[in-house]
Amino acid sequence: MSAPARGRRRGSPDTRAAILAAARERFATVGFGGTTIRAVAADAGVDPALVHHYFGAKNDLFVAALELPVDPRKVVAERILAGAADSGPGERILRAILSVWDDESLRPALLAAVRRFFEPDGGRLMTDGFLPAVLEPVGALLGVAEAPARMPLVASQVIGLVLLRYVIAAEPLASFTTEQVVALYAPVLDGFLTGPLPPASL
Amino acid sequence: MSAPARGRRRGSPDTRAAILAAARERFATVGFGGTTIRAVAADAGVDPALVHHYFGAKNDLFVAALELPVDPRKVVAERILAGAADSGPGERILRAILSVWDDESLRPALLAAVRRFFEPDGGRLMTDGFLPAVLEPVGALLGVAEAPARMPLVASQVIGLVLLRYVIAAEPLASFTTEQVVALYAPVLDGFLTGPLPPASL
Repeated sequence: MSAPARGRRRGSPDTRAAILAAARERFATVGFGGTTIRAVAADAGVDPALVHHYFGAKNDLFVAALELPVDPRKVVAERILAGAADSGPGERILRAILSVWDDESLRPALLAAVRRFFEPDGGRLMTDGFLPAVLEPVGALLGVAEAPARMPLVASQVIGLVLLRYVIAAEPLASFTTEQVVALYAPVLDGFLTGPLPPASL
Repeated sequence: MSAPARGRRRGSPDTRAAILAAARERFATVGFGGTTIRAVAADAGVDPALVHHYFGAKNDLFVAALELPVDPRKVVAERILAGAADSGPGERILRAILSVWDDESLRPALLAAVRRFFEPDGGRLMTDGFLPAVLEPVGALLGVAEAPARMPLVASQVIGLVLLRYVIAAEPLASFTTEQVVALYAPVLDGFLTGPLPPASL
């Protein structure tokens, strides 16, 4: 996962905005897999090298297009390194996600990103983009075997938890401490990450 | 839980629609707890007795206002009675929900209802309405102790599962058979329904 080039040179705001708008349109209509840097560059009227220069690889362009306040891959990687060595993968991923959502300065942008997944065509952003570009790399960082099969299961719990705790603020979830959430949900995530998957014959 | 009076007499479509519109507005702005049949009747310009006559109790009016294709309380009650006596509460609730969502004739109305929860003010429909009016009675039917504390945990998993499997159609969840979903998720729901809750001191 190469770092976006933002730090070195931000480029013309108009050019960057045109590339991001073209990328969002492509990701939403033809999915992550169907989007190429070349096509985004053509839509934005720039050279493909400029897209790479500003945004890095396609994964990085996708994360930039989500307009998240943080790069979720980077935050989880940091938390994995900082986390207690004896905590399981479910606890590590959960603490990383809770720490981001508990930061109220990030909350409005996170809420906007979540809502985007439920707009028309937003589903493709999730299935063809967020899962392969963000969740599967996070799974790989955690050393999860069969990440493409397991990370969507993790997502099915994390998304519901985030919706009830932060978006809808349903009790008792909204008032739980981090430790209470971890006690309840880390075992669920560990089951999805390391437990048996259902046999294909079921 | 009294049955709505719809079967006996549907009344003027305009009157029913006016009552439903007034109810939706009240539920969305002042929540389920803050809404009274009297206030809804006043907003719609009808007698409170007419609201009771058409829709029954406040819980029933709330479910009617959600415009769901089925009454979730009724469907789950039927499935509990029809279900295998030796299956746990998690499996029973899961099979009921999957059977409704797997019915493609109901899908568009269910999707519309789900999206409504994520519109501005939609959170109150969930926290102040859906949880007490629908989920807690379902928990009571299942014999769940501490339903107000436990059913939101169940909701946190079921909502994420429904979003990924049906709304977003993420693999492998979208292609799982019912038995595969039950194998993976019934133990999670049983944990939330009957397992230890986190101590208040955590």
